[in-house]
Amino acid sequence: MNHEENQLLTSTQPETGMGEYFRRFWQPVLLSCELPEADGSPRKVKVLGENLLAFRDTEGLVGLVDHFCPHRGASLYYGRNEEGGIRCVFHGLKFDRHGKCIDIPIAAPGTCRDKLDIKSYPTHEAGGYIWAYMGPKEETPNFPAMEFTTLPATHIYVSKKWQDCNWAQCLEGAIDTAHFSFLHMVIAKDEEEALSKLQHAAIGAQSAQNARIRWVKDDPMPKFEVLETDVGLTIGGARKADDDDLYWRIAQFMHPNHALVPSAFPGENYHGQTFVPVDDHSCWIYTYTWNPDRALSDEEIARCKMGHTVHAQVDENYVPLRTKGNDYLIDRAAQKSHSFTGIEGVSEQDAAIQDSQGSIADRTREHLFPTDVGVARFRRHMLQAVRALKETQQAPRATAHAASYKMRSGGWVAHRDKRLHEVMVERFGHQQGIVA
Amino acid sequence: MNHEENQLLTSTQPETGMGEYFRRFWQPVLLSCELPEADGSPRKVKVLGENLLAFRDTEGLVGLVDHFCPHRGASLYYGRNEEGGIRCVFHGLKFDRHGKCIDIPIAAPGTCRDKLDIKSYPTHEAGGYIWAYMGPKEETPNFPAMEFTTLPATHIYVSKKWQDCNWAQCLEGAIDTAHFSFLHMVIAKDEEEALSKLQHAAIGAQSAQNARIRWVKDDPMPKFEVLETDVGLTIGGARKADDDDLYWRIAQFMHPNHALVPSAFPGENYHGQTFVPVDDHSCWIYTYTWNPDRALSDEEIARCKMGHTVHAQVDENYVPLRTKGNDYLIDRAAQKSHSFTGIEGVSEQDAAIQDSQGSIADRTREHLFPTDVGVARFRRHMLQAVRALKETQQAPRATAHAASYKMRSGGWVAHRDKRLHEVMVERFGHQQGIVA
Amino acid sequence: MNHEENQLLTSTQPETGMGEYFRRFWQPVLLSCELPEADGSPRKVKVLGENLLAFRDTEGLVGLVDHFCPHRGASLYYGRNEEGGIRCVFHGLKFDRHGKCIDIPIAAPGTCRDKLDIKSYPTHEAGGYIWAYMGPKEETPNFPAMEFTTLPATHIYVSKKWQDCNWAQCLEGAIDTAHFSFLHMVIAKDEEEALSKLQHAAIGAQSAQNARIRWVKDDPMPKFEVLETDVGLTIGGARKADDDDLYWRIAQFMHPNHALVPSAFPGENYHGQTFVPVDDHSCWIYTYTWNPDRALSDEEIARCKMGHTVHAQVDENYVPLRTKGNDYLIDRAAQKSHSFTGIEGVSEQDAAIQDSQGSIADRTREHLFPTDVGVARFRRHMLQAVRALKETQQAPRATAHAASYKMRSGGWVAHRDKRLHEVMVERFGHQQGIVA
Repeated sequence: MNHEENQLLTSTQPETGMGEYFRRFWQPVLLSCELPEADGSPRKVKVLGENLLAFRDTEGLVGLVDHFCPHRGASLYYGRNEEGGIRCVFHGLKFDRHGKCIDIPIAAPGTCRDKLDIKSYPTHEAGGYIWAYMGPKEETPNFPAMEFTTLPATHIYVSKKWQDCNWAQCLEGAIDTAHFSFLHMVIAKDEEEALSKLQHAAIGAQSAQNARIRWVKDDPMPKFEVLETDVGLTIGGARKADDDDLYWRIAQFMHPNHALVPSAFPGENYHGQTFVPVDDHSCWIYTYTWNPDRALSDEEIARCKMGHTVHAQVDENYVPLRTKGNDYLIDRAAQKSHSFTGIEGVSEQDAAIQDSQGSIADRTREHLFPTDVGVARFRRHMLQAVRALKETQQAPRATAHAASYKMRSGGWVAHRDKRLHEVMVERFGHQQGIVA
Repeated sequence: MNHEENQLLTSTQPETGMGEYFRRFWQPVLLSCELPEADGSPRKVKVLGENLLAFRDTEGLVGLVDHFCPHRGASLYYGRNEEGGIRCVFHGLKFDRHGKCIDIPIAAPGTCRDKLDIKSYPTHEAGGYIWAYMGPKEETPNFPAMEFTTLPATHIYVSKKWQDCNWAQCLEGAIDTAHFSFLHMVIAKDEEEALSKLQHAAIGAQSAQNARIRWVKDDPMPKFEVLETDVGLTIGGARKADDDDLYWRIAQFMHPNHALVPSAFPGENYHGQTFVPVDDHSCWIYTYTWNPDRALSDEEIARCKMGHTVHAQVDENYVPLRTKGNDYLIDRAAQKSHSFTGIEGVSEQDAAIQDSQGSIADRTREHLFPTDVGVARFRRHMLQAVRALKETQQAPRATAHAASYKMRSGGWVAHRDKRLHEVMVERFGHQQGIVA
Repeated sequence: MNHEENQLLTSTQPETGMGEYFRRFWQPVLLSCELPEADGSPRKVKVLGENLLAFRDTEGLVGLVDHFCPHRGASLYYGRNEEGGIRCVFHGLKFDRHGKCIDIPIAAPGTCRDKLDIKSYPTHEAGGYIWAYMGPKEETPNFPAMEFTTLPATHIYVSKKWQDCNWAQCLEGAIDTAHFSFLHMVIAKDEEEALSKLQHAAIGAQSAQNARIRWVKDDPMPKFEVLETDVGLTIGGARKADDDDLYWRIAQFMHPNHALVPSAFPGENYHGQTFVPVDDHSCWIYTYTWNPDRALSDEEIARCKMGHTVHAQVDENYVPLRTKGNDYLIDRAAQKSHSFTGIEGVSEQDAAIQDSQGSIADRTREHLFPTDVGVARFRRHMLQAVRALKETQQAPRATAHAASYKMRSGGWVAHRDKRLHEVMVERFGHQQGIVA
């Protein structure tokens, strides 16, 4: 990649190519529990470089509006969330959740209020998140109801975590299944001991788990196959399994910033992440775990809260406890004895590496290998999509396929002669992994 | 306002238009008590973007000089405040309070010391403050002896507080009496309860107070009248009172950065503020309370120390306890039940709003209303004065009227047919509010 | 000096004139004890603006290599320091101490690894430090074995300390012996009391010490003489002693950034400092004390650890306890009663003044005196050397004289008719102070 492409891929500020592209999609912008009650405290929201304010109005519906009052530029954050709108405490101007100015106590009755309306974005609540659409209103796409957003609350666990670097390198980490042979690996010689320490292992039959870990350790050079879907890319990495079989780990990338984890076998929990830029140098990572068939157990939820697979251990502001500032509490003795990194937590291991690539990774100095094909395809795919939007101004193709966002990712064992599209049908009953 | 005007209004760095203008006036730069003793510790002072050093010399007089030694550029702050001057600890050069180099122990006797003289500004102590004049020496104006500087120490309480934004938006807040119907208001239904909570209420007859609060609450749209004075603007805002009367709240703006509070009725305490830029993104606000007729009571002084009207509750460095960094300790439950903002303290409420306008408010995106006339007049008035100085290089008109700085502001009730100049005479015995 | 010269003198980033010059010399980059064991934790190293990584490999030899993996740009700091090299935890690439890529587990056998080699610099351990040479490999100079690097560990004490300003003003402070009459002086009237407080006084006969302090106090205007050596400058400052004698304090500057302290009389401990730029606004100061004739006593070492002469009192990260952020814990009462600065510690007094000159001292506004001749000669000397390198690309002259770095500095008393070259021979047995 050259410098211009790196910038195009990573910058989502207003009026950038990727910024315009992101704005064509629904994005999570808050946890629902961050606005717990009607007429409660508003929340500052920064997303795609824009400073916004979210509040839950009297009807319980969420407004996402400009942060500042158009009268004298005071912050509406200190405002009163009153009956049907947020009121600026400076001179009392009031705005409803659509940004409409509904009261100007300092203006004479009959004053036209239209030019005082403020920017607002439509919101939607689903799956424990508040989502927003920040693009042209006349082209608002259908909501992409990912599977976890369609399940009972008992079947899902959702959170978010702060990260100190650009969104794109985080997403690249999520679809790069090659690094599982290293970054997240245990190095104990005894495989049972290894398993017991591998805290991101999904719940499954012990012997099955043991085999998977062995396969990942023994073959650090998976063969990749990448397929286009309605809404992104299916990225399959196949490692030698026993006999003539391959062990497939299949991730899903969905436009513009969702990635599903490649680990789940049928019956196991699914996991995914959505990487929402705050600005070009930081992002919120929305993380979700779901089981389509049953409620999550208390133990599973407790584990997620303590940091598990994509879920980090976070403080009350959703900032991970192990961050760049404290070197992720790296334990060099543990790194010697049993952990490849000495850093606790799969999410934290990912964060350490992704942050370390710089606040915006410099892709012009890389040397890619065949195992990077998923990452390379993602970049090419996104750059094409961004350039197409710029040229045609037509809504991105993925936005026309809201139903296709209900898809799964996961693992499977298949004969080495099988191609990825056959494996998909075997594992998911659908070539793209879409749930009926 | 366009961007160029916004910049002209707000930037007071050396060699800017407003910077030159400010330098034509005496400014408070320290509390007298920050230099408590002759030959005591010097103090770092940053004002109008200049790094300076203040020290009280052996005679008890204050020098305000360049921060750095001209020999090798070491800071004089670590210097020795000795007999008649400050001595650099690097090689012993010594400077008196006029910046004159009076000793160079590393130079042979007879060496000419003149070129080692450093920048210095004349100072004057009055009203508990150390004032400085930073303009052309040959045009040093008479000291503008505001009333509080002319009274016995028993009759005044003076302090200062740090603010994290540009001076001009703070001053605009101080002369904008329209926001009293909102920002500082209590919302209890019972007016007596409201009064008891309204901690900035002046001391006066209870029933009179109650009426004023009612008038301010019931008329959020005061009619404004603005008059020019010798030294600035008288800004009167009139609200409907009982019967055919108007309740006037009259603020005074004095060039270039003083504002007197519009609340005092005869016999009550007067309050004022002077907004001294540190740089373009922060300022010290010098705050003063005075009673021309009597000593302040211990209770009044105790209240000021805890934060009262323009006085903030500050730490030992004069930084407010409730600041942007801690969201001014906003209490959302209080905001629901009885306080318009949920923020404690009139000064802190002002600071929250003024800081929230950005480190320099962007005046190009505002939408002003008739109640903003005082603010608009202030801006026009200042821009004209700055441009006039640039063109004519003549001392600002206000500097020729030092005696006119001894003026008052305050409240009054008058028949609705009265114009502001008549109200001024009724209330203050002088059309400009000047004290004989 | 003009602005361009100031920049040339101070900037050591890659591709600057001084940056290229520094890279022709061996530099200390870590304490040996910061890499205590083979295959232990790696260390981040930033030197001359370059982000590097140091690790001690299985053989106990130190690699100093690029901080980042060339594959995807992950930091090697989180890497595994394994058998014979450091392994990136992202995808397992491994590099030996020469930066050679020795394993790529994600690449097929037979893949050419040469283009994955990373930048590395040769290292050498001596005198308790790890040294590196960052210039053209074909012109690597012999190691400049300063005397302390040639002695048994028992005879030396070495440390380092962080400083928040440019390297050059620190070095200038070290060779400026004129400031001893001020910055480090005690002001007690009783000279014995003064001595007891002068904690940087070398160990010697009490009466001899007393005399030296008296001479330094009584003559603040030493006469300077500067001689060129094979590797730098000998800077002698002579003060009036008793009768017809002069008290010489003789510092050594060795290219490009070493300075030896001018205090030691024969038999006393020697001290020196090397100022290694981290970037243009901060440096590590490597500090060393040695006695060529005997082991340092426990008491001497304990004193060094608590801060003594050039050694600062530092925390576990080698950051001084008394820094700009806490005003060096200046004690104004002590400054009144007995200490010229009120700051404890010679090193800390130097740091206070040097930091106070700004993060890069502005030499365009100085007014130099005859006592600044050493500083002026150093600047001229260095600028000439830098320009010569740029024009000729020939290795700096000093690098051809590695053996001449084994030199001493110190004090002496001689008849006033003696010139510096004669004093050198008297004091050191060699005109340049070189140890046989």
